[in-house]
Amino acid sequence: MNAVHHNRIRVAILGASGYTGAELVRILSHHPAVELAALTADRRAGKPLSGVFPHLGFVDTPPLQNIEEIDWAGADVDAVFCALPHGTTQKVVAGLLNDGAGGKKPPRVFDLSADFRLKDGETYKKWYGHAHEALALQGRAVYGLTEHARPAIAKTDLVACPGCYPTAALLPLIPLLAEKLIEPSDIIIDSKSGVSGAGRAEKEASLYSEVTEGMHPYGIASHRHAPEIEQALTDAARWGVTVTFTPHLAPMSRGILSTKYVRLHGGATAVDLHDALSKRYKDEPFVTVLPRGVAPSTRMVRGSNRCVINVFADRAEGRAIVVSAIDNLVKGASGQAVQNMNVAFGFKETDGLQQEALFP
Amino acid sequence: MNAVHHNRIRVAILGASGYTGAELVRILSHHPAVELAALTADRRAGKPLSGVFPHLGFVDTPPLQNIEEIDWAGADVDAVFCALPHGTTQKVVAGLLNDGAGGKKPPRVFDLSADFRLKDGETYKKWYGHAHEALALQGRAVYGLTEHARPAIAKTDLVACPGCYPTAALLPLIPLLAEKLIEPSDIIIDSKSGVSGAGRAEKEASLYSEVTEGMHPYGIASHRHAPEIEQALTDAARWGVTVTFTPHLAPMSRGILSTKYVRLHGGATAVDLHDALSKRYKDEPFVTVLPRGVAPSTRMVRGSNRCVINVFADRAEGRAIVVSAIDNLVKGASGQAVQNMNVAFGFKETDGLQQEALFP
Amino acid sequence: MNAVHHNRIRVAILGASGYTGAELVRILSHHPAVELAALTADRRAGKPLSGVFPHLGFVDTPPLQNIEEIDWAGADVDAVFCALPHGTTQKVVAGLLNDGAGGKKPPRVFDLSADFRLKDGETYKKWYGHAHEALALQGRAVYGLTEHARPAIAKTDLVACPGCYPTAALLPLIPLLAEKLIEPSDIIIDSKSGVSGAGRAEKEASLYSEVTEGMHPYGIASHRHAPEIEQALTDAARWGVTVTFTPHLAPMSRGILSTKYVRLHGGATAVDLHDALSKRYKDEPFVTVLPRGVAPSTRMVRGSNRCVINVFADRAEGRAIVVSAIDNLVKGASGQAVQNMNVAFGFKETDGLQQEALFP
Amino acid sequence: MNAVHHNRIRVAILGASGYTGAELVRILSHHPAVELAALTADRRAGKPLSGVFPHLGFVDTPPLQNIEEIDWAGADVDAVFCALPHGTTQKVVAGLLNDGAGGKKPPRVFDLSADFRLKDGETYKKWYGHAHEALALQGRAVYGLTEHARPAIAKTDLVACPGCYPTAALLPLIPLLAEKLIEPSDIIIDSKSGVSGAGRAEKEASLYSEVTEGMHPYGIASHRHAPEIEQALTDAARWGVTVTFTPHLAPMSRGILSTKYVRLHGGATAVDLHDALSKRYKDEPFVTVLPRGVAPSTRMVRGSNRCVINVFADRAEGRAIVVSAIDNLVKGASGQAVQNMNVAFGFKETDGLQQEALFP
Repeated sequence: MNAVHHNRIRVAILGASGYTGAELVRILSHHPAVELAALTADRRAGKPLSGVFPHLGFVDTPPLQNIEEIDWAGADVDAVFCALPHGTTQKVVAGLLNDGAGGKKPPRVFDLSADFRLKDGETYKKWYGHAHEALALQGRAVYGLTEHARPAIAKTDLVACPGCYPTAALLPLIPLLAEKLIEPSDIIIDSKSGVSGAGRAEKEASLYSEVTEGMHPYGIASHRHAPEIEQALTDAARWGVTVTFTPHLAPMSRGILSTKYVRLHGGATAVDLHDALSKRYKDEPFVTVLPRGVAPSTRMVRGSNRCVINVFADRAEGRAIVVSAIDNLVKGASGQAVQNMNVAFGFKETDGLQQEALFP
Repeated sequence: MNAVHHNRIRVAILGASGYTGAELVRILSHHPAVELAALTADRRAGKPLSGVFPHLGFVDTPPLQNIEEIDWAGADVDAVFCALPHGTTQKVVAGLLNDGAGGKKPPRVFDLSADFRLKDGETYKKWYGHAHEALALQGRAVYGLTEHARPAIAKTDLVACPGCYPTAALLPLIPLLAEKLIEPSDIIIDSKSGVSGAGRAEKEASLYSEVTEGMHPYGIASHRHAPEIEQALTDAARWGVTVTFTPHLAPMSRGILSTKYVRLHGGATAVDLHDALSKRYKDEPFVTVLPRGVAPSTRMVRGSNRCVINVFADRAEGRAIVVSAIDNLVKGASGQAVQNMNVAFGFKETDGLQQEALFP
Repeated sequence: MNAVHHNRIRVAILGASGYTGAELVRILSHHPAVELAALTADRRAGKPLSGVFPHLGFVDTPPLQNIEEIDWAGADVDAVFCALPHGTTQKVVAGLLNDGAGGKKPPRVFDLSADFRLKDGETYKKWYGHAHEALALQGRAVYGLTEHARPAIAKTDLVACPGCYPTAALLPLIPLLAEKLIEPSDIIIDSKSGVSGAGRAEKEASLYSEVTEGMHPYGIASHRHAPEIEQALTDAARWGVTVTFTPHLAPMSRGILSTKYVRLHGGATAVDLHDALSKRYKDEPFVTVLPRGVAPSTRMVRGSNRCVINVFADRAEGRAIVVSAIDNLVKGASGQAVQNMNVAFGFKETDGLQQEALFP
Repeated sequence: MNAVHHNRIRVAILGASGYTGAELVRILSHHPAVELAALTADRRAGKPLSGVFPHLGFVDTPPLQNIEEIDWAGADVDAVFCALPHGTTQKVVAGLLNDGAGGKKPPRVFDLSADFRLKDGETYKKWYGHAHEALALQGRAVYGLTEHARPAIAKTDLVACPGCYPTAALLPLIPLLAEKLIEPSDIIIDSKSGVSGAGRAEKEASLYSEVTEGMHPYGIASHRHAPEIEQALTDAARWGVTVTFTPHLAPMSRGILSTKYVRLHGGATAVDLHDALSKRYKDEPFVTVLPRGVAPSTRMVRGSNRCVINVFADRAEGRAIVVSAIDNLVKGASGQAVQNMNVAFGFKETDGLQQEALFP
């Protein structure tokens, strides 16, 4: 479907029957430097992809395989995207990287699960309920918030792609903390997510009739993305950050809107925050600080890899409101993973990711 | 449609072609002590109600009239619900109450607009951009958050029914401030509203294709419900309260979910807050503090006059998260107005308001 | 919650954890002549109803039991609503009616499943894939399309409540065929249903992200409601009717819109059809033939037990278009079941069913 | 944003503030052979495009102008897309083509309105209520259903792009009639459309709260797309075709699902129809006949220029059901217009149109 490209890399997608897997196929099937070499899906192995995702039935892809069926040597794969459930990824990645993929140079791995995001084994155990099974890799993995990790991504063989909520929260908060414009001790993140963030699992709570035309919070003060956010903010602030984080389920398929309430530090104003973020991201293709006064909306980024950000003065003295929006399946998952692949392989960072948002 | 009731009061609804007007008809047409005497609608006068709201076409109601056409003397009206746009209500209500309605005892007025909610003329002018035209009435009006104003409602001729966002926020916050369980200086209200809150006006921003499958904040730090919330909280706290208030538009027709971030005072815990609210509201028919751990959802109250509330401990020390949900058109508007009428006329407070939420 | 009623009947709901079960609770908990005596739910036994349907958590109901746990003698039940999955109902009902409910006079049974709708054992076997397990009861059951079966409903102990698609299609088509206004050999039914029709089962196809913002047909020429429709139309026409029936899944929770394309018989016109239906249903509380030109919408009946109907002339000569709309969970299921109970027990037919549609 | 292309054509979009205008920008801004030269929008002139469509705020486009402000000579435009309201287009196009665009060779015009679709002046007058103002052009215009009009499109200067409903209906029906597989006298088209088909006009009927969670038909036997469909089918059948056509509004933003009920001719079967369509479209990049048994869904094509089709045997003898789905804004409007431009200028037909559908 694309013009011939002499150095296309060969890519495998593990877990292609979930929503993030489908997004990887959607994006990579039109990537000028990529050839899809293998797709896996546990329960759907043997089916064509069109049987699982009819909207992708027009793309020429390999059939779905069971992950054990892949002949890694023969597959000759340069990059592997893992879109597997949390917990199961550890062994798979360890196998790929430690044992080698068929005796050859191991592929670079871009993991979309939570398995390699937390650096600290104890924190992982506390939040995920079991000891990590690949602690050594844990340390080696690079936390792939692209705009803040390019040099490390270029060098590593394992990128832990950030969660959707963390991506939306961290892009604005990291520079604000790094430049000491906001207090690290008073950060409230109120996030609203589309339902696709819960994946394609058959759960009562994800049924159309349960979700449409209503809203509710969930995982209040107990969502696993909180320690992930805190780890990155602590790095940025060089100060132990604890955040208040409340995710909400909104009646929409895609999108995260993240509203953050911050306390200003050292006399900074909302305008200072806007200026700092504008400066930090002015050359970034996928992060846009909107003109002052324009409210971010998830509709601005539906289907695109962009994050839009803005800052508003609060009426309460000494406070500001920072709002950001992403598509949870793109910049919050598959798009950012491809962006990381582009960085890792030295491709143009926007390759495969140039389409505009789909609205209405 | 109801059994004969010997002392039915005669009720007029001004502005019956909007969503809150329609809800008033829906509720009052099955109220055991009410007879609908007159309905007005400016642009739709002369039409039957079914031409404006087909779902109400099965109710036997008076036709829509122009407000000027009403012969107040002949109408012999005991109660008037004003569901008119903000700003236009002042003159209408002044006419009804001051000039008398046809020389007879004036009716009791239940106003759903914002016109009589703010006590202070200067505050009104600042937020609404023009001087109030009925300042004397302003002072006389009772702010009708039913559970906190019954004695005054029973005595007044003018009830200013609270806005939808304030109702959802105030029901949990007033007792917490009154009992000094939370700090008055650090209250953040992140609210998510359905689109019906914007009314039935033909606005691009309210079109289906503009709203579906996306979220955004609006009126950040500048929404007119902020001073209304602050006025009531200041009364409760006996301390000048400024709140951080961010409304968001959610892709749903009905419902307000209000997530509040508060700082605990005097060593109080989230459990203390839950206990205090449970105690305060245990005999209330329309306010329910949920069992600990259960997240409020707008789906619990869709179409009902109920407010559901819960309190959650925050991971950030010294903080708690208070969540409430209402149907913006019922407890947030027409239902509460009818509840106020029930109080004012000495009816059973649940009359006409007993139906359960509609789910799914 | 209701005023005392000296002759309340005691009612059990089998399968109270599904959507039709929840609707039964919603309706019956405010029925003036009903007392809820028992609720069952297989997987959720032991839970309070609020744990399964939080929106009903404010109603005072018995806890959910396993169906085997019910002491039918002690329960002293007058009526049983079966909202169980197709296929499992046969044995349960046979047990209730044949073995007696604890040795006493058996209760009247109102079955919402498909198990007793088809009169012919062979047809049942063909469409449901297995022999019927209670053939004798099959013959005794009354097909409970209320407006067309009152005398029989009053006398039977087993009412097979019609399916949602059949209810919407049959209410207009039966009189038209009975009065020979349309050809029995050329009836096309294009139906659009909300997702709640698929129940609360955890199926990928019912997930929010799979359903929202799209439409598709399903069960084309193979849906089990086709033989049910044909059985009733054949009765009405006294002619073997085969229909073209295509159901579609629409991105909404409730509602069925049924668009029927018919060929006129004997020189009849669309106006004749409108007249005939208007005459037939003019005294019916729940069936409304709309004024000419007004298109039925599911929004007119959301949450109500009403069916709205209209007839339109087609540009193609000799044809007409008949449109009807119901709420699939109310008139298409639980509401009609309660209506049938009202008929069976001699209550006022509108008891418990008087609320208006919820819009917006 | 694209690599340099030496022979880029310069394109103007008239009416860029509507949904089809926005889709043209979305598609053309990434078209390898196009440069956006001018955008017009009557009420929004002077604004940047981002002020009207924030999701397109990241594309580098000319600002919105009033149509009178365009200096056609200086603009040096090769192609003009007209996305103006019906009725206003006639004069604009006549001006462009007859008077010349600034004295130079006139641009090719791709009109998305209905103004040049009907060939017959009387038919136009009857359905649109006024005489056509550019009858000569009417005759010259090519009806641009791309797959059936390539040679003519390549030669004309005025392409009348088909309506959304006609596109979905005609793609399957034209070959079936041309090959005499179905009766021309018995064609029923039941269509379900997303709300974006009504455009961005501020109408009560298009408000979110009026549309969500419900369905209704509209324009029954009187929709203006009926004569357009009949004109094309009459051409294909060489027989005067009158269709039964009922559009429905579905609670979704994009998509048309078109369910067609046809009578088989000359002993043809549903399989014959499937075979004929498969053969006719096997080399088409944007028309896919799905494998037998797979139901078309609008979700398969959301955001893409594809039309998916399938044929199903009916239980009623001698009948078949033909289902098709498109995105009304893409294949039903802007995508097909770009496809026509590609044909007209000899570009690769898929240029700019290669992205996959966006799901979920």
